Amino acid sequence: MNFQAMIDALCTVVAIPVTPFIGRGSTIYADFQAYAYLVDKMVSAGISAVTPNGNTGEFYSLTQEEMRHALEATVAGTSRRALILAGVGFDTATAIDMAEFAARQGAQAVMVHQPVHPYRSDEGWVAYHKAIADAVPHLGLVPYVRDASIGASALRRLAEECPSLVGVKYAVGNPPLFAEIVAQVGQDRLAWICGIAESWAPFFWVGGARGFTSGLVNVAPALSLTMQHALEAGDYGAAMQIWHQIKPFEDLRARRNNANNVSAVKEAMAQLGLCAATVRPPISELADNERAEVRQILVRLGIETHKVR
Amino acid sequence: MNFQAMIDALCTVVAIPVTPFIGRGSTIYADFQAYAYLVDKMVSAGISAVTPNGNTGEFYSLTQEEMRHALEATVAGTSRRALILAGVGFDTATAIDMAEFAARQGAQAVMVHQPVHPYRSDEGWVAYHKAIADAVPHLGLVPYVRDASIGASALRRLAEECPSLVGVKYAVGNPPLFAEIVAQVGQDRLAWICGIAESWAPFFWVGGARGFTSGLVNVAPALSLTMQHALEAGDYGAAMQIWHQIKPFEDLRARRNNANNVSAVKEAMAQLGLCAATVRPPISELADNERAEVRQILVRLGIETHKVR
Repeated sequence: MNFQAMIDALCTVVAIPVTPFIGRGSTIYADFQAYAYLVDKMVSAGISAVTPNGNTGEFYSLTQEEMRHALEATVAGTSRRALILAGVGFDTATAIDMAEFAARQGAQAVMVHQPVHPYRSDEGWVAYHKAIADAVPHLGLVPYVRDASIGASALRRLAEECPSLVGVKYAVGNPPLFAEIVAQVGQDRLAWICGIAESWAPFFWVGGARGFTSGLVNVAPALSLTMQHALEAGDYGAAMQIWHQIKPFEDLRARRNNANNVSAVKEAMAQLGLCAATVRPPISELADNERAEVRQILVRLGIETHKVR
Repeated sequence: MNFQAMIDALCTVVAIPVTPFIGRGSTIYADFQAYAYLVDKMVSAGISAVTPNGNTGEFYSLTQEEMRHALEATVAGTSRRALILAGVGFDTATAIDMAEFAARQGAQAVMVHQPVHPYRSDEGWVAYHKAIADAVPHLGLVPYVRDASIGASALRRLAEECPSLVGVKYAVGNPPLFAEIVAQVGQDRLAWICGIAESWAPFFWVGGARGFTSGLVNVAPALSLTMQHALEAGDYGAAMQIWHQIKPFEDLRARRNNANNVSAVKEAMAQLGLCAATVRPPISELADNERAEVRQILVRLGIETHKVR
C-alpha cells in the first residue's frame, strides 16, 4: 500500500479495540482470543482501520509482551480486511522495537503515542518521530497529538523530513486551533483524524478532519459508521442526530475526569455478553448506579443486552 | 530503617540526578560511570536523599535496562551515605518488577511516578499503588502526584491501606490545595515533599511541606541545601533570598513550556565540566543565546565555569 492509498484509507472511523481482561485483583489476565474475536466482529461490521495498543485498549496498563500479543490478535482478527495502525510509544529505543515488531507482523502504519516525557521541544518532538520513521520507512506514520503546544510548525517540519507521515491524530479539544493547523500544514497532504472520537468529530470535520478515532465501535460500530458516512456526505444534520443519540453514553464516559472512559465501554460490552467489565488499575469498574445507567442507555440506543445479566 | 525514620529522612532536599549522555543522533548512550560520579559528588556536598529515575533523569527516555543501570549507579555513588528513593512506573507488572529490583539493590523506598494511563479513578489509583506496596512491603512508598484530581480522599485511603506510605511528592502548583490536603491527611503522618522544586518550596512550606525535590542540586547543591536549612529554621526571608537568586535559572528552565527543564541543567553542567549537554528526544539542547544566558547566570551565582569552554 503506497502512502497516498494509506492517507485515503485512514479517512474513516479508526477503531480502538478494548483489551478484554479476565480474573480479579492481582491476577487480571488479558484474553487475546477474545481480543481477536472482537476485532473480527468490528471488521465484519464494516470497520476498515484498527489501532491495537491505543488508550481504549488500556495501553499503559499492558506489559510489552501483552502489547505484542494485542498486535498479533489484531492481525488475526482483521485477516487482511482492515488497515492496522499499530500504537507504539515510550522511549525512542522501545518505540522503534515496537514499530519494527509491527512491521514484521504486517501492520501498515504506526500511531505514535504522545511521548510520555513531561518536557518536549519542537525539535525534540520532531527528532523522536523521525527516529521511529527512519527505522520503519515503509510504514505510515501517524503522530497522536494531545498537547496544544505541538502546532503547525512542528508538524510541517515533520512532514518535510518524513515522507511516511500519512496522518495526524489530533486530540486537543479546540476546533479553531485544529482548523488553523490543518490550513497551515495542508488539508490534502495528510489524513486529519479527530482523536477525540464522536463527541468532537462533527466540529473537527468543519476544520478539515476526514475521520475520527472511536472507542464506541466496540459497542455499536453501526452508529460510528453512520456518523462517518453522514459527514462524508456533508450531512451535518444527520451526523448531529447520531451525536445527540450517543451523547448520554459519551457523557458517562467523560465523567470523573474521564476515569469512566474505558470502564463504561467495557460495562456496556459486558451487558452485551461480549467480554467482562474487568479493567486494570489505575482505573476501576463503574459503580452500581452507573451500571444501571449503561443498561438504560443501551435500551434507548436499541441495542439488545445479554439475556442472562 | 523503619518507616518513621524514613519519614524523617525524607524531610530534606530530594535530589534528582541527571542521566549523563554521550554521543550524537541515533547513538546517544547513557554514561553510568559519570552518573555514579555525579551522585557521589552531590552526596559529598551534603545531599541525603537521591531519586534515580526521576524526570530530571530523563526517565521516560531511558530503556528498562538503562533504568536498572541508573539505580545501580546510584547505589555505587551514594555508598550508603544517602537514602535511595527509586523512581518506578508504567503498568502495574512493570512497576512491581522495578520496585523488586530496587529492593534487591538496597533502595529504601520507591517514588511511584504518576500512572501514565490517561484515565484514572480514585479506587484505581489506590489499587495501583497498593499493588506495588504489597510487592515490596519493607520499602517506603512515595506517590508522585501531578494531577489535581488526586486529593485527600485518595491519599487518606492509601494511607489506611498501606503502612509503608511514608511520603507524598506533590507537584500541582497550587499551595492552597496542597495545604488543604496536608491538613486532611495529617501533617505528621507523612513526609510532605514539594515536587516542583525550589521555585515553589517556600510557598509549599507554609502549607506543610518539609522538603522539596531538586534538579538544581546537579549544578549547585549548596544553594538548595541553604534554602532547606533556612526553611527548617523558619527563616522565610533567607529562603526567599535564595529563591530570588536562582529565579533567572529556574525561569530559563521553565521556558518553552518547560522544554528547557533538563536541557538548561545539563548545559550548566557542561559549562562546569561535569557532563555533556546532550539530551535525548523529545527534548533538545538549548539554543546558542540561551547557552550564553546560562553562562551569565553561573557567573552571577558565583559558580566557576569550566576553563576550556
